[in-house]
Amino acid sequence: MWPEHHLSSVRGIVLVFNRKYFEQCRPPDVVVFPRCVEEVSALAKICYRHNLPIIPFGTGTGLEGGVGALKGGVCFSLRKMDQVLDVHQEDFDVTVEPGVTRKALNSYLRDTGLWFPVDPGADASLCGMAATSASGTNAVHYGTMRENVLNLEVVLADGSVVHTAGKGRRPRKSAAGYNLTNLFVGSEGTLGIITKATLRLYGIPEAVVSAVCSFPSVQAAVDSTVHVLQAGVPIARIEFLDDVMVDACNKFNSLSYPVTPTLFLEFHGTEDSLDEQVRTTEEITSANGGADFQWARDEGTRARLWKARHDAWYAALALRPGCKAYATDVCVPLSRLPHIIVETKEDLIQNGLTGPIAGHVGDGNFHCIMVLDPDDSDEVQRVHQFTERLARRALALEGTCTGEHGVGLGKRALLREEMGPGAMGVMQSLKESLDPKNLMNPGKVL
Amino acid sequence: MWPEHHLSSVRGIVLVFNRKYFEQCRPPDVVVFPRCVEEVSALAKICYRHNLPIIPFGTGTGLEGGVGALKGGVCFSLRKMDQVLDVHQEDFDVTVEPGVTRKALNSYLRDTGLWFPVDPGADASLCGMAATSASGTNAVHYGTMRENVLNLEVVLADGSVVHTAGKGRRPRKSAAGYNLTNLFVGSEGTLGIITKATLRLYGIPEAVVSAVCSFPSVQAAVDSTVHVLQAGVPIARIEFLDDVMVDACNKFNSLSYPVTPTLFLEFHGTEDSLDEQVRTTEEITSANGGADFQWARDEGTRARLWKARHDAWYAALALRPGCKAYATDVCVPLSRLPHIIVETKEDLIQNGLTGPIAGHVGDGNFHCIMVLDPDDSDEVQRVHQFTERLARRALALEGTCTGEHGVGLGKRALLREEMGPGAMGVMQSLKESLDPKNLMNPGKVL
Repeated sequence: MWPEHHLSSVRGIVLVFNRKYFEQCRPPDVVVFPRCVEEVSALAKICYRHNLPIIPFGTGTGLEGGVGALKGGVCFSLRKMDQVLDVHQEDFDVTVEPGVTRKALNSYLRDTGLWFPVDPGADASLCGMAATSASGTNAVHYGTMRENVLNLEVVLADGSVVHTAGKGRRPRKSAAGYNLTNLFVGSEGTLGIITKATLRLYGIPEAVVSAVCSFPSVQAAVDSTVHVLQAGVPIARIEFLDDVMVDACNKFNSLSYPVTPTLFLEFHGTEDSLDEQVRTTEEITSANGGADFQWARDEGTRARLWKARHDAWYAALALRPGCKAYATDVCVPLSRLPHIIVETKEDLIQNGLTGPIAGHVGDGNFHCIMVLDPDDSDEVQRVHQFTERLARRALALEGTCTGEHGVGLGKRALLREEMGPGAMGVMQSLKESLDPKNLMNPGKVL
Repeated sequence: MWPEHHLSSVRGIVLVFNRKYFEQCRPPDVVVFPRCVEEVSALAKICYRHNLPIIPFGTGTGLEGGVGALKGGVCFSLRKMDQVLDVHQEDFDVTVEPGVTRKALNSYLRDTGLWFPVDPGADASLCGMAATSASGTNAVHYGTMRENVLNLEVVLADGSVVHTAGKGRRPRKSAAGYNLTNLFVGSEGTLGIITKATLRLYGIPEAVVSAVCSFPSVQAAVDSTVHVLQAGVPIARIEFLDDVMVDACNKFNSLSYPVTPTLFLEFHGTEDSLDEQVRTTEEITSANGGADFQWARDEGTRARLWKARHDAWYAALALRPGCKAYATDVCVPLSRLPHIIVETKEDLIQNGLTGPIAGHVGDGNFHCIMVLDPDDSDEVQRVHQFTERLARRALALEGTCTGEHGVGLGKRALLREEMGPGAMGVMQSLKESLDPKNLMNPGKVL
């Protein structure tokens, strides 16, 4: 969900506040730019023979240090494999090479009436999005990468090439053996290099309406979300900004939204169905104390209405010029959101930290955009402790430490707390069975 | 999608036409009825120590012989663990023990305004549905079990208990490590015994409309389906019956539908949105040559309208009293459906076989309900050869040999053709790492 300038790089930038990892991280020994799966396979075989770590690299837009070369090794940059291979309009699917980004795909698809809706914010590569199990603002309606990948071509640690659903296969559903596709989705490069992905596509909606509504409390905003979902409104996006974030956005963009918890909503459908969706949603928000419900259908007004949400990252950074940002990523059951958000805001205030909140509230997933001075070691330490407390708060509320950014480097200890020794043991044995030499993106996830 | 009397049993009825498996299959040495996960675990430890195969058993409604005791061993009947454990209305989730069936759950949920929509026809246990990656008529809108399981409690071969998303966790989305949940969904009891499932729930739709429409050709029915999906109509069910099936249903239920390819449709939504969905769909079907478009909103008329679809299995059996039935289960990309259905119908005619067709056309998945005399060895042989040809036809069209029934006993060779040696090798190594003694439901899937 975050823009390009919050990039990692081939040299491996990791959690800006987490010095111990930063210090562990060194550049890869070499970067290779294979042009086809045969080259990826041949290079992987060389690495396998010589016990060289492999670090797959898409666009480097991941947020958890997944491309850091902890143990050196060979970085596989996949940007030269950038072809859209097969669009099947009637079947609502497409196959892409690993260098194709989501914006490039959607631009390619423009004349087909189809689009790929998963939108993590950054113009990430689609295979990278598969590798990290990305999602973003549209997930409440269209699902995450887990629900939208039909097949993957993967080069394993030993250089062999497998197709997770069988070569060239693309049925919309399948019960054929173990779900290998979803084993590699979210494996963050630790089980293999994704060299091709077959994705589900959707019809571009006939019409889109955007809306904004202010609330007296976090509880009122979350209640509205639950009621909208209960009412079966097929909402496409339902995004939450807390008062601090709204204030930052107002300042950054010269806007004048009430400085209270706010929902940004988007509806996809036909002209007629949108009228009803908007009407129902307005009734629900109003019954929950929502005010200033504004909506817009034409593209220009929609863009203005959502400007605050789109620029949230930059608005947060602008709160403290010269500082850096890091996004937390917990996800909890919807009913737990008010509790955790209120407690988290108190924690931020008590510790004098800047962390405006933006979230995909329809999924129970929210981010504190922690703005901090990386040269202030005390602040760095306090942010680090805050993020751990926040993650443990989510775990105590039956949630996860990562809704969509992944584990990468910094959340490995939290993952163990989240999963418990049994599930971690299973993950470890899967890793050992597919990558016995621990060459695939070592030091990540597990 | 098939009713209860097409059951397997603890003694392991398998593909009725596939004698060689039937002969291999013997009763389990013992059936145990554990009452809690601790008992499942303790029993599994005994089996592990004494190298006894474990065959998990839910309701025995699986269609591919998954509960057959090929090597004897211990059948774990989970019917005594039948509690609905936690309904979280605001979070749209529920946790169930393995003896809870989908009808029992939906009856339990009635007062909450929520329901679990995955509907394979039979009143299967929900954990069994998870184990076989079941889906059915609602999948085009609500997804299959793969999209609707949030967490599983699983007892592994050695008796250890793991929670695939961490104990008690139920965020609506997660990027925390490998997706173990979807590794066990569809593993057909070969990786562990599912003893608890946390499932997604949905709001019961405010209104439902059912519709039926006849078409001049399979192509016209499929084109209508594609156009409905392209138009973004959020259709809940879109089911295809071929002329032979319609004829059988007419005879069985004294109906008078035109004996042509027919779509049975269902729309879920609000009163207003349904009007538009139905109008759009009627326009699309009409543009594709559809005729006799009938629709109904009140429950009684809806039930009458869909009676043909609901009774398809019995209507097929009634074509040849005293015979048995077996359902094929291929799934192909939508655009390939007309081709494969037309070719399959010719094959049926050429070989003098009875196999009316019903399908979940929105997913590209269809079934030939093969009605055959199990004592006629020549017919049994011809049906067997037909099902293999049909599966290979689907494979040649980039599809799968099983859209929702699973691999079980009879499709293991086809699975190898579908996946290729690379993916099969990965499946095999996953199996070996989690069940090194091959005790979990041996002889199935792989």
